[in-house]
Amino acid sequence: MRATQFLIATEKETPADAVVISHQLMMRSGMIRKLAAGLYTWMPLGLRSLRKVEAIVREEMENAGAQEVLMPAVQPAELWEETGRWFQYGGELLRVKDRHNREFCIGPTHEEVVTDLARNQLSSYKQLPMNLFQIQTKFRDETRPRFGVMRAREFIMKDAYSFHASEECLNKTYEIMHAAYSRIFTRLGLDFRPVLADTGSIGGALSHEFHVLADSGEDDIAFSNESDYAANVELAEAVAPAGERPAASQAMTQVSTPDASSIDALATLLNVNANQILKAIVVRGTSEDENADEDTAGEPVVLFIRGDHELNEIKAEKLPGVLSPLQFASDAEIQTIGGVTGFVGPRNLSARCYVDRSAAHLADFICGANEKDAHLTGVNWDRDVELPTVADLRNVVAGDPSPCGKGVLDIKRGIEVGHIFQLGTKYSAAMKATVLNENGKDQTMIMGCYGIGVSRVVAAAIEQNYDDNGIIWPDAIAPFQIGIVPMNYHRSEVVQAATETLYTQLKEAGFDVYLDDRDKKTSPGVKFADMELMGLPHRIVLSDRGLEGGLVEYKHRAGEKEDVALDGLVELLRQRVKC
Amino acid sequence: MRATQFLIATEKETPADAVVISHQLMMRSGMIRKLAAGLYTWMPLGLRSLRKVEAIVREEMENAGAQEVLMPAVQPAELWEETGRWFQYGGELLRVKDRHNREFCIGPTHEEVVTDLARNQLSSYKQLPMNLFQIQTKFRDETRPRFGVMRAREFIMKDAYSFHASEECLNKTYEIMHAAYSRIFTRLGLDFRPVLADTGSIGGALSHEFHVLADSGEDDIAFSNESDYAANVELAEAVAPAGERPAASQAMTQVSTPDASSIDALATLLNVNANQILKAIVVRGTSEDENADEDTAGEPVVLFIRGDHELNEIKAEKLPGVLSPLQFASDAEIQTIGGVTGFVGPRNLSARCYVDRSAAHLADFICGANEKDAHLTGVNWDRDVELPTVADLRNVVAGDPSPCGKGVLDIKRGIEVGHIFQLGTKYSAAMKATVLNENGKDQTMIMGCYGIGVSRVVAAAIEQNYDDNGIIWPDAIAPFQIGIVPMNYHRSEVVQAATETLYTQLKEAGFDVYLDDRDKKTSPGVKFADMELMGLPHRIVLSDRGLEGGLVEYKHRAGEKEDVALDGLVELLRQRVKC
Repeated sequence: MRATQFLIATEKETPADAVVISHQLMMRSGMIRKLAAGLYTWMPLGLRSLRKVEAIVREEMENAGAQEVLMPAVQPAELWEETGRWFQYGGELLRVKDRHNREFCIGPTHEEVVTDLARNQLSSYKQLPMNLFQIQTKFRDETRPRFGVMRAREFIMKDAYSFHASEECLNKTYEIMHAAYSRIFTRLGLDFRPVLADTGSIGGALSHEFHVLADSGEDDIAFSNESDYAANVELAEAVAPAGERPAASQAMTQVSTPDASSIDALATLLNVNANQILKAIVVRGTSEDENADEDTAGEPVVLFIRGDHELNEIKAEKLPGVLSPLQFASDAEIQTIGGVTGFVGPRNLSARCYVDRSAAHLADFICGANEKDAHLTGVNWDRDVELPTVADLRNVVAGDPSPCGKGVLDIKRGIEVGHIFQLGTKYSAAMKATVLNENGKDQTMIMGCYGIGVSRVVAAAIEQNYDDNGIIWPDAIAPFQIGIVPMNYHRSEVVQAATETLYTQLKEAGFDVYLDDRDKKTSPGVKFADMELMGLPHRIVLSDRGLEGGLVEYKHRAGEKEDVALDGLVELLRQRVKC
Repeated sequence: MRATQFLIATEKETPADAVVISHQLMMRSGMIRKLAAGLYTWMPLGLRSLRKVEAIVREEMENAGAQEVLMPAVQPAELWEETGRWFQYGGELLRVKDRHNREFCIGPTHEEVVTDLARNQLSSYKQLPMNLFQIQTKFRDETRPRFGVMRAREFIMKDAYSFHASEECLNKTYEIMHAAYSRIFTRLGLDFRPVLADTGSIGGALSHEFHVLADSGEDDIAFSNESDYAANVELAEAVAPAGERPAASQAMTQVSTPDASSIDALATLLNVNANQILKAIVVRGTSEDENADEDTAGEPVVLFIRGDHELNEIKAEKLPGVLSPLQFASDAEIQTIGGVTGFVGPRNLSARCYVDRSAAHLADFICGANEKDAHLTGVNWDRDVELPTVADLRNVVAGDPSPCGKGVLDIKRGIEVGHIFQLGTKYSAAMKATVLNENGKDQTMIMGCYGIGVSRVVAAAIEQNYDDNGIIWPDAIAPFQIGIVPMNYHRSEVVQAATETLYTQLKEAGFDVYLDDRDKKTSPGVKFADMELMGLPHRIVLSDRGLEGGLVEYKHRAGEKEDVALDGLVELLRQRVKC
């Protein structure tokens, strides 16, 4: 592509609303333009990268035996009513009425549509497994769209859905998809990790997220330093400390702690480390009244963790008796169980309690006295207070032993770009998607689903690969792999001839080449700056002086300049461009 | 692709709502499935053809210098308010409010979005011409979606928009697009015609439609039998009959014609040919009150055409004083100008009148007497009644002289699959999309727009290429180019070995190959029937008997069986498969 025939839209200024680096660089390099909040036009430069991501995703999905379909973006409400999601899904679901006043939504996901297709199309276990995928525009009406295409309202997703007659069959396809995703992100040239994840509201048994590692990531990922273990901190198990709980050595004493209702204040007042304090978190419980609404709160439940730890809300929500999603109890509700806000402790409390594994390992600890401005010190489980049910309640922290048994955990930030789920029969049961099994009986199909945020991948790749001058594309998804800057192109016949020959040779060799043929009104400095901002990984500069000696300048976007022979350059690039 | 790894969804039954052949065959062959009225899922078979159409369109658009972008499907109302289309566009525009109660639409077209992009991105005439295209899902909330993907609500369109600083520049790009479209439809293997078309409500100066010729087409296309002239009948000029008007030979006489208020009844009653009768059509006129609303009807206008001709409403709407869109006058309105419904004639009528060129050529004609149950015979222009303004008012008919001056017109039916327009400044003026011109002054950009109904092309190709057994794909857009049916595949080692070798060879030669490897429970008859229904253009049958002699059976979908040597088959197919 010649620069003079290409819509170059580089900009010096960073838009005020662009707070993450990928958003800034995508705007500045001219990859995208904003139409409205969360709605972006992909410009020619950006679309080239997007299409390359799509092509790799498509190829690997097909290699993994999935078949491509294309389902409508506009979906009838009736299907969503069958699964109940028409009512459960919040404001993210963009609902619309057609001219006949029938209700539809602009699909944020396609479980209902694909399950409807499967129940109409599949009748026998012999047709299974069936894995259908599409690469398609989706819409989620985010409350606060942000970070450019990273959290846009309209975005492109690869979503796949598999159908099975047995768990074993689902497990097999799940493994195939896990492997396909690993190949996809490897081919995209990204540093990524598949991590165990929470199955959340979508339901199901097993789930992995695929994260691109980047400091700007919104998720915390825990890794073992000695094994392959990786899990979203949401899910990573915090194992019990090794060994026996230390023996009690202090007597329990009540101390006055005026206004010390926070862990920090208490630790300062008593001059102790937060890890000696027992933190109480009072949440709403489920109602025990069988006739009550599912969401009606019952008696509060108290969760104890160590003062230096953080509650893991996802783990807490799964405890028996705890209302989900998690809600914190009011001061009045805390009083009903004998507690005082800021001074809640396990002694003389009439509530269902859980204690985290680490907190259960404490001895001589400090906790609230259930009286205003008072705490207890030297408290010991079993001796002074009954040990509540022990559970995993907290987020893991760096240095925790890995739950796999090998090494300790490190924590890095990641951007979720893929997610695979074992859905089970959540959708197929609700929608009566059955096949005849080997015994000629109706059997509800078992499902898996597998997503990749195609447009988000482009942004995530930038979050992982940039410097002060702009993007540094992995070769596989660079809009152009090679950029050519000819010096004095419009004045030197030698340079022009060599440039044209090289440009043709490289195109014929199958490379995506960008030739900056803009005239002298655009200085070499601007051309270099544009090319670095746009992130082209391999750059060739031709000049009269170099060509006299048969040389051109080669520079990798992240490397140093070197003079290389023009003769043999195509071969050299064949070796250096990975795709 | 092996049949056993492919979602085969052929059906014997034709769905009741499928009235056109492409809809029937797309459903029966398993190319598409209906989700709701006007919403279809593209199944793996159909998507393969759709993607091939997309690829050819994309390649030719890029070769023609257009750059691909991808604009959001969801568009803010503000932009549509700038051009006034938010109010003008009817129920086809699917309007939606987001969670913040802001108004959007699901884009049926992208003039507003692309003009907004251009005004933000383009600042100088030096950046022009710029031609941007996208291949994207659009939504039009059709009152009565029908004919499958031919008139669906959600569909895929290639839309392109060009920006210019001069009419000459627009004309040049328009010609380039005209040529690119001709290459596209030629490569797709379709019998098509570019025809002059009405610019209609979208506005603008020049427009061509590209029609795939098929008996089921909704449009009438007029062609010269001796030149390249082709035009939509909506637009085709009906030229004046050659020579002078014949001289009067009869005296004007009033005759009683009780109840003969239609041309047919009158022709029967008087035993004359309809082409001797002057037909009057009374329509509403525009108001002459300058303060009146644009749409307020004024005095009726009378249009006279020959009794055997049809009024062309598009031509009529463009006449000075005629209300657009065309509305017929009521009986009461006809009375106000001295007419009687069913008996209106030019004599003693107090209204603005127009007469068609052919009707103006009549002598001794018959017309209404403006009295109930009475007509005049032997009427002659100028002698008995003043000749009104002569205009082209009627649809051309087969046998009319071609307006190009060469030959006579023939009329065929066509399916519109492409449309190119010279938009002028309709959108750019409303949205203030200007660039600095050579003199450093703001100049409104001149625009062109160019659409192809990508998903409709697939259906149109079928309307043109089918027989009683199913689809007959042009090679370029066949889901698979070659189908292999091995006889006794699961029992004969000879057949199986030869089949596998051939399958591998053909794939390596770059063909899209479908191998029907289903086991003996699927009879050869079913395999042949499925393959014919699916329309695969080249079929190879392998059998023990043939292979003994080194032969296989080759059949083109539209041709006869022939025995050909297995040795050299790849080369033979290289010659026969066109793509």
